[in-house]
Amino acid sequence: MSVHVPAPAPAPRTVLVGDPLGALVGAAETAPEGCVGFGPQTFTVIAGPCAVETREQVMTTARAVAAAGAAMLRGGAFKPRTSPYSFQGLGAEGLELLAEASRASGLPFVTEVLDPRDVGLVAAHAAMLQVGSRNMQNFALLREVGRSGRPVLLKRGAAATLDELLAAAEYVLAEGNDRVVLCERGVRSFDTETRYLLDLAAVPALRQRTALPILVDPSHATGRRELVAPMALAALAAGADGIIVEVHPEPSRALSDGRQALLPSDFDDLVRRLAALAPHFERVLARRDSGREAALR
Amino acid sequence: MSVHVPAPAPAPRTVLVGDPLGALVGAAETAPEGCVGFGPQTFTVIAGPCAVETREQVMTTARAVAAAGAAMLRGGAFKPRTSPYSFQGLGAEGLELLAEASRASGLPFVTEVLDPRDVGLVAAHAAMLQVGSRNMQNFALLREVGRSGRPVLLKRGAAATLDELLAAAEYVLAEGNDRVVLCERGVRSFDTETRYLLDLAAVPALRQRTALPILVDPSHATGRRELVAPMALAALAAGADGIIVEVHPEPSRALSDGRQALLPSDFDDLVRRLAALAPHFERVLARRDSGREAALR
Amino acid sequence: MSVHVPAPAPAPRTVLVGDPLGALVGAAETAPEGCVGFGPQTFTVIAGPCAVETREQVMTTARAVAAAGAAMLRGGAFKPRTSPYSFQGLGAEGLELLAEASRASGLPFVTEVLDPRDVGLVAAHAAMLQVGSRNMQNFALLREVGRSGRPVLLKRGAAATLDELLAAAEYVLAEGNDRVVLCERGVRSFDTETRYLLDLAAVPALRQRTALPILVDPSHATGRRELVAPMALAALAAGADGIIVEVHPEPSRALSDGRQALLPSDFDDLVRRLAALAPHFERVLARRDSGREAALR
Amino acid sequence: MSVHVPAPAPAPRTVLVGDPLGALVGAAETAPEGCVGFGPQTFTVIAGPCAVETREQVMTTARAVAAAGAAMLRGGAFKPRTSPYSFQGLGAEGLELLAEASRASGLPFVTEVLDPRDVGLVAAHAAMLQVGSRNMQNFALLREVGRSGRPVLLKRGAAATLDELLAAAEYVLAEGNDRVVLCERGVRSFDTETRYLLDLAAVPALRQRTALPILVDPSHATGRRELVAPMALAALAAGADGIIVEVHPEPSRALSDGRQALLPSDFDDLVRRLAALAPHFERVLARRDSGREAALR
Repeated sequence: MSVHVPAPAPAPRTVLVGDPLGALVGAAETAPEGCVGFGPQTFTVIAGPCAVETREQVMTTARAVAAAGAAMLRGGAFKPRTSPYSFQGLGAEGLELLAEASRASGLPFVTEVLDPRDVGLVAAHAAMLQVGSRNMQNFALLREVGRSGRPVLLKRGAAATLDELLAAAEYVLAEGNDRVVLCERGVRSFDTETRYLLDLAAVPALRQRTALPILVDPSHATGRRELVAPMALAALAAGADGIIVEVHPEPSRALSDGRQALLPSDFDDLVRRLAALAPHFERVLARRDSGREAALR
Repeated sequence: MSVHVPAPAPAPRTVLVGDPLGALVGAAETAPEGCVGFGPQTFTVIAGPCAVETREQVMTTARAVAAAGAAMLRGGAFKPRTSPYSFQGLGAEGLELLAEASRASGLPFVTEVLDPRDVGLVAAHAAMLQVGSRNMQNFALLREVGRSGRPVLLKRGAAATLDELLAAAEYVLAEGNDRVVLCERGVRSFDTETRYLLDLAAVPALRQRTALPILVDPSHATGRRELVAPMALAALAAGADGIIVEVHPEPSRALSDGRQALLPSDFDDLVRRLAALAPHFERVLARRDSGREAALR
Repeated sequence: MSVHVPAPAPAPRTVLVGDPLGALVGAAETAPEGCVGFGPQTFTVIAGPCAVETREQVMTTARAVAAAGAAMLRGGAFKPRTSPYSFQGLGAEGLELLAEASRASGLPFVTEVLDPRDVGLVAAHAAMLQVGSRNMQNFALLREVGRSGRPVLLKRGAAATLDELLAAAEYVLAEGNDRVVLCERGVRSFDTETRYLLDLAAVPALRQRTALPILVDPSHATGRRELVAPMALAALAAGADGIIVEVHPEPSRALSDGRQALLPSDFDDLVRRLAALAPHFERVLARRDSGREAALR
Repeated sequence: MSVHVPAPAPAPRTVLVGDPLGALVGAAETAPEGCVGFGPQTFTVIAGPCAVETREQVMTTARAVAAAGAAMLRGGAFKPRTSPYSFQGLGAEGLELLAEASRASGLPFVTEVLDPRDVGLVAAHAAMLQVGSRNMQNFALLREVGRSGRPVLLKRGAAATLDELLAAAEYVLAEGNDRVVLCERGVRSFDTETRYLLDLAAVPALRQRTALPILVDPSHATGRRELVAPMALAALAAGADGIIVEVHPEPSRALSDGRQALLPSDFDDLVRRLAALAPHFERVLARRDSGREAALR
């Protein structure tokens, strides 16, 4: 009788995300200045508002998160909302504002796409396309983002097993697009204490099974501002390759999910702590132009 | 101090589904021969294979379920599969086969649509469009089926609350399409004894909150043939307006979900039991042409 | 390739519960007048208040449920309460009141025991011992009720698999006590719409695996009065051998769980509907003295 | 409109656990040499086998974990097992072996008690009493451990909300015993990838609501050896006051839960990493005699 030895985990892969102007990079030698990497030697922080609301809001937030040390900007232009009568996002106008904030801050941006017919439009603006948790098994959308050639941030469904998450990623990979970054963002559970239940053990469990980078979203998972920083630090300790967090200059005025947004000052403090902690896990905080470096390693 | 009295439930609405040739009906006086109703005085049985596989399979099944007393035919042409490498359905060819089986059996059919770009194609063939549980919050798809004018069978997501199901239905209703039928099909839970956990209490709970008809899918919920009939009978007793079940002439050869398909003989027996039980709940089993009658009541 | 045929289900066993004076019955020929049976040909209704509060309350309720057709009385003397500062039940005094109500109504009673040290006391009064869902894996208690010789009503834990429920029953059986009746009472889930999620498919699933009788508790499962009757009827349709429901003459004054208690008039109506429906499932409503008859079949 | 500011969290309390010979300490000035503290400035590691199996096994393990830097020993003498036919622990003999291993290693030990009638016996040997997750709402047991005066390690039930965990702790506190340490050990969820779903966000969420120390059990939560170290590190990062982990010299020969036990060498490595990381969270690794120091701060 022998000790159970799990199969060796796959060698982690680095995924590069192009510069804010949209240059696509597929190989190390072509990694342009300004691109960002997700991989085993970095910890990549994506930050920004839940939804793009106004030019001022997104510009202010982008500059603040860039100054604090975020490597990428996030923000929703097309918002998946439970009710058709809630704010649905600014759509194409929101993409323009994100692009402007991206140029101003120097941060590439990721934004969600909801409809396969919008993939071209979104891919023309964004450095990375997000498939949200509600759409993790929207196979038409997965195929379309696969064909777009853009890197894809694929969030785990709120009741998806890891098997299903990996199978969903295959829909993108099967189109020849291997730049997929997985994201754990909490699953449905019975306790209303937090919005979802953040499954941090999914990070090392996925690591045993896939070479794809793995992010954590502590904002949507917990739904509570005061839990975001502890869970972001825990994500790093659990082996994640980065986080995606919500930051809003005035959370109380946010049109969606203000309750879970960090203030810029809290975010600044969090990034400092992550940067100090990262070397313990043989990582450095990704900088906005760290892609080239990552690719050359 | 007084006994809690819940607000009176909304008066249940009848949804009519047009004849197999596609005539749409919106009002009682125009209900054509051959249409089917979902509502408070009937119990409507939809049956057919999980996926359309061959002409022979779908024709045989359609005739068998019609003979047994089903009011509508079901069958998947576009299949949402966890893995991109599983059988994905016959697509447009599957729709043609369903339409042929519908004409031969006299049963209108419902089939799933996965992509907003396919809604027109599917609506040109099917009497009713199904939005599956994986797509319950695919808002682009919900809007598109809303615009199609076709009646919509909206399945509850595997981790969706009733609030979310009702909000998803609003996406269809907001497009001016009020012919929505809700369907409970089991939610994710911790016990692997059944595939999902059938939430039958959702039926009377939804009844307190919506006028829309409510179906139950005992096949996907349990994933086990031997549990389908007990749960179908329980659905009637719990107040459901009908069921949707999978029937396959040779379950062991099914390309998907054979484990949960009833044999035609089992289905025949089930329909007999439902017909005998229905009057206890002041219902009659819907016949394939019961829509006109339902509409005139 | 052949159709999957599940192994034949075990032949259902009848469990007899002795008369209110405590005579224990283990074999058909000794079944006394007044005992009650749980088994495949009857549908046994247990009813009464959540907690014993006053002499008047329990006497009134016992007479009302006996008049309506209940076969057994239920009531809590030792109450498992989430908080130590909530009403904990009347204890030994509650047992006396239940015994008195049992004699007055002619109904044997079942009551919960929480502490292995109380098993002797409770067994001296009650015809049947309940192990509640919080204690399903309280193995010391299971062993003690096993040794008591009294029939045991074993409720499924709120997060217990069927495997675990059956293994818990084995703790009682292993003590030589084979009079165990299982009870599904809802499991934890993510939707706050109902208190727990009633897993009715557990009834036919358990039937495939055990000869023990299977009850359903629609009161605790749903936590809402208006859902109790539909789920009680659905339990019968799903193949359950009976139900246990809460009835309170003045639910708004109940010290615990008033929100889920039926009024006596609602209960009366429910029993009528169950009696009318039972023959469709080849059952008759158990009467308070139906044990002898059941045992002789 | 103002930013939501959660109420200030209670000031964390330090719980002291007496020396292996059983001296009880309730106040700082009486903290004996050899006692261990759980509190805001330390990170306390409890380690040992799941079950006590043989003298050699427990002695070897105790010495190994002491050498590696554990502050306390764990080990099961009374084992709660799903089936009555599984190994149930060595009982009183196991307690003797634990006491011997405790003296040899200098580590106080914690062990589970299952039956209120065993509390006296267990308290005569162990420095700390564990109430396991299956018994979190075994109120008779909670009251008895409350009366024992011994510090109590209270594990969260597999489907317990934080409200329920805190209410269960009140049963101990209400007996005048305020030395309660809470422990998150994973909750039931739908994915079989891990044994339970470790709810690390419960750590900061509990911190907002209670002064009691909070531990994490990554062994039972994940059920997989290779996930234990990442989740132990994440527990520290999330703000936990310590961990309890399983270590076995020959996991493949373990009579229970060998699949999740660390090898002594892995444990050694884990403790080193925790010690290096702790100062980032303003903590030091608790030493076996750190209680006095903790109490005096």
